[in-house]
Amino acid sequence: MNNIAVILSGCGYLDGAEIRESVLALLALDTAGVPYKIFAPNKQQHHVVDHLKGEEVTGESRNVLLESARIARGDIQDIAELDIKDFDALVMPGGFGVAKNMCSFAFDGSAASVDDSLLDIVKAFKAAAKPIGAICIAPAFIALAVGEHNPTLTIGDDQETAAELEKLGAKHQHCATTDCVIDEANKIVTTPAYMDDSAKLSDVYIGISKLIQGVIRLA
Amino acid sequence: MNNIAVILSGCGYLDGAEIRESVLALLALDTAGVPYKIFAPNKQQHHVVDHLKGEEVTGESRNVLLESARIARGDIQDIAELDIKDFDALVMPGGFGVAKNMCSFAFDGSAASVDDSLLDIVKAFKAAAKPIGAICIAPAFIALAVGEHNPTLTIGDDQETAAELEKLGAKHQHCATTDCVIDEANKIVTTPAYMDDSAKLSDVYIGISKLIQGVIRLA
Repeated sequence: MNNIAVILSGCGYLDGAEIRESVLALLALDTAGVPYKIFAPNKQQHHVVDHLKGEEVTGESRNVLLESARIARGDIQDIAELDIKDFDALVMPGGFGVAKNMCSFAFDGSAASVDDSLLDIVKAFKAAAKPIGAICIAPAFIALAVGEHNPTLTIGDDQETAAELEKLGAKHQHCATTDCVIDEANKIVTTPAYMDDSAKLSDVYIGISKLIQGVIRLA
Repeated sequence: MNNIAVILSGCGYLDGAEIRESVLALLALDTAGVPYKIFAPNKQQHHVVDHLKGEEVTGESRNVLLESARIARGDIQDIAELDIKDFDALVMPGGFGVAKNMCSFAFDGSAASVDDSLLDIVKAFKAAAKPIGAICIAPAFIALAVGEHNPTLTIGDDQETAAELEKLGAKHQHCATTDCVIDEANKIVTTPAYMDDSAKLSDVYIGISKLIQGVIRLA
């Protein structure tokens, strides 16, 4: 195992990357002794959300790369610089940032438009048979990008979201927060994490740890 | 153990709470099965820092409570609502937010001014003999608030910062990232975490876990 690329979508679950999932994915990688590099798209967020009230903030704009840099402690690069030859696997934490900044799944479901740069990256990892781990809502991007390969994946037990993923060719599998779904043939590993808003943080870490271990085994 | 109050100072280590330390403190509490509530002051940050370049952003202002809510997933209260009767212990993750938003230690060292609300809270926990856990730079606030009790604490191996804490009455003890310093008499537990910028994330979690276990034992 040489290196894993981790892609963040901002900083805060309502308009960016889910912070806890991001930190716990890095913790699981570091605990496993696997090096990683962090990337994010250098673009403006779809919007900014007040995380106390849950309401959109008007008149404010934030950049996905700069906000992701808060989680990365500045050690982050533009996804335009990601060369998949340098990496053995890809990991995408969740948060609405994936479904708002990386694609429009939060608004358009299976009819969503996608960020072309990230689309190319996910397709390239899949084509190179390098494993992809996707947490929480990130499996929606996987379905949008490589749904034609009929990946088996999980979004927890959210039937409405699962139905949208199945429209894209994915096969949805129910999964507990403490577990992950491993599609051995497609080398895609998914775990629900905070798809359940009331999930226990320690359970989220168990699920993410299993996902990281699955990604490492498949690499 | 009924409840632990966790106080955050924003979201991002250069102008707010250290995100990883905050998440890992919550993970250690949840793993130990101890309930917690999260608080932050409802005030503007000292400033906003671009975490990619490490430079101050001019013309932008962010609120400490709203940014902390990103880590708290919205489940957070103003520290003005914190009643220490409801809590058995206090935990403060680090990040420059503690030394910029909660006091001016980042600029003024031992001559720093402090946020009166948080000062009152820390003094009240100390007076009630309820344990306090302080991570990274947060021990600087402890020294400013209750230095007259000559607490033994750690800031890792940063001699310059340690000297400032000792001017306030604290006794500094060198400590590895994977460990913590427990002042049994004063019920104050400290761990260096990201005082070492190059610390391994998994080592930071080991140190924070020991701190949380120490706080729980003393409560």
